[in-house]
Amino acid sequence: MAESRTEIGTLGEFGLIEHLTKNIEQRQISTLVGVGDDGAVLDHYGRQTVVSTDMLIEGVHFDLAYTPLKHLGYKSVIVNLSDIYAMNAIPTQLLISIAISNRFSVEAVEEIYEGMLAACDRYHVDLVGGDTTSSSGGLIISITAIGEVSPDKYVKRSTAQKGDLLCVSGDLGAAYLGLLLLEREKKIFLESPQVQPSLEERKYIVGRLLHPEARKDVIEFFEENDFRPTAMMDISDGLSSEVLHICKQSDLGAVLYEEKIPIHPDAKDFCYTLELDPTACALSGGEDYELLFTVAQADYDKIKDIEGISIIGYMTEAEKGATILTKGGNSYPLTAQGWNAFS
Amino acid sequence: MAESRTEIGTLGEFGLIEHLTKNIEQRQISTLVGVGDDGAVLDHYGRQTVVSTDMLIEGVHFDLAYTPLKHLGYKSVIVNLSDIYAMNAIPTQLLISIAISNRFSVEAVEEIYEGMLAACDRYHVDLVGGDTTSSSGGLIISITAIGEVSPDKYVKRSTAQKGDLLCVSGDLGAAYLGLLLLEREKKIFLESPQVQPSLEERKYIVGRLLHPEARKDVIEFFEENDFRPTAMMDISDGLSSEVLHICKQSDLGAVLYEEKIPIHPDAKDFCYTLELDPTACALSGGEDYELLFTVAQADYDKIKDIEGISIIGYMTEAEKGATILTKGGNSYPLTAQGWNAFS
Repeated sequence: MAESRTEIGTLGEFGLIEHLTKNIEQRQISTLVGVGDDGAVLDHYGRQTVVSTDMLIEGVHFDLAYTPLKHLGYKSVIVNLSDIYAMNAIPTQLLISIAISNRFSVEAVEEIYEGMLAACDRYHVDLVGGDTTSSSGGLIISITAIGEVSPDKYVKRSTAQKGDLLCVSGDLGAAYLGLLLLEREKKIFLESPQVQPSLEERKYIVGRLLHPEARKDVIEFFEENDFRPTAMMDISDGLSSEVLHICKQSDLGAVLYEEKIPIHPDAKDFCYTLELDPTACALSGGEDYELLFTVAQADYDKIKDIEGISIIGYMTEAEKGATILTKGGNSYPLTAQGWNAFS
Repeated sequence: MAESRTEIGTLGEFGLIEHLTKNIEQRQISTLVGVGDDGAVLDHYGRQTVVSTDMLIEGVHFDLAYTPLKHLGYKSVIVNLSDIYAMNAIPTQLLISIAISNRFSVEAVEEIYEGMLAACDRYHVDLVGGDTTSSSGGLIISITAIGEVSPDKYVKRSTAQKGDLLCVSGDLGAAYLGLLLLEREKKIFLESPQVQPSLEERKYIVGRLLHPEARKDVIEFFEENDFRPTAMMDISDGLSSEVLHICKQSDLGAVLYEEKIPIHPDAKDFCYTLELDPTACALSGGEDYELLFTVAQADYDKIKDIEGISIIGYMTEAEKGATILTKGGNSYPLTAQGWNAFS
């Protein structure tokens, strides 16, 4: 009997998830939102909780050659908190599982925890459980975050409306450029160990990669101003990929204006050094952990003058697809890897 | 500057967890129980939820040479549900993260999911989220389970009282014997691939290893009979280790009667084949996923005649330590690896 074998690469990560989760049934009345968003939403007796989980694997998600352990611990927590904020909820508790080989000392694990606890402290979150186990090789960190949200105030990816404004917090692409810089320095170091990297002048992009923050302040601003986005998610895989998620899940298209995409001057500067296009980096570079959200046109006044919030485009009917309008006046379809002009 | 390096082996898993978690502060008023039990307990607006997480790593927790993928998926869910039941709660939702290398096909991942979803179905639990990522080597599964419990009905490890009866559900040691059998067959197979193992007559012990169930029925029995243990945990690392956990966390000692420890005839039979002591296997063998709990003496009548519940000893003052009284009339201190006579 011949067994068929389909390579995972033929589906891709999102295809695989879609394939595996298509038969999932929900049985519990307390399950309000299941798979397919930044977090799940559970009904707990009138109020609601949001849960989300993320796994970080050495060699896949981080390289210990240039990631300080304390920063790694901090970032692994931030990545999860970002998912909770992206549901318009406030994180409250964390569970942390960690697998380590005997190549790590107790002091090394302590450093990771120090970073994790520093993030818990800063974001006022409790570490309430987890699992510690040995791994046969690399370091693995798996975190589940739990948060609270007032009844029906959570924000999904699938609820954007045609005509809504498309907005992002902060600036994009810098973390990816920090990664390119550190990869380059690692290569130089391996070839000529006597050369010490000077990262000081590239502090901003390196910091965006190694020491990201979650946009708690944006969610608090929404709450204080009694404002609610129509759809939201966090930007972990690059702007293009996330805009396409909102389009697909809301059954809409989108237009982005290249000139409106926020890019930090230091990120632009390093782009020019590498002869890269800053817009391509913002579209395809991951790990920014900014928020992408849509806003009803009626709420335009509430956000138009907020520093650190950029209106980068608007939602259209699905048939128009997702496109970017360049500074030069051309329109290109968005793809998960940037746009076609770059493929 | 000399940096100190402490090997993780010098602390051990429990020592490491204790070391890392000793500085954890709780900030959220909704955190009722934090690290150190089978699950954490969160206060959700009058009712309470329990959360727990577990990580399974290829080569550490399972060997794909003799673990069918579907069974692995099923078991990885059971392990987590067992922790929720051990808090006297009912599991309701799961988040599943899985890391796979390209050595796995889509069909292989489907099989794992099939097993996971079969367990979700049987235990009426919703899969509400997770993460799918690539690993550089082995298969990694990390699951977080969420459950519900009526206000203040959860049962911790730390609340046993002196004089309480010590009870276990089901029988012990069989999963460990199943592991010994499969390890032996793997070795034989690697040496002489033409020899086919005959596992049929050892079905019980193999089944206990590869296809465990969580003791939902025991928790339902407690609920129906308005009965509540004084302390409880599930048996994943062997009876000795778990009795010592309850003793330490409740600040008590315990006496176990060797003759009362429930061991299945098929487990005993395979012990004799290997010339092993069945009691040692029950004390030290892991992965039984039975429940260990303590009962107030006043509740003796409620449990004395229940089939499948064994009263195996009682709790004493801490000074007396944890001991086992053998069939031959000797008393030995319990250790996490069985008892001293076997070391």
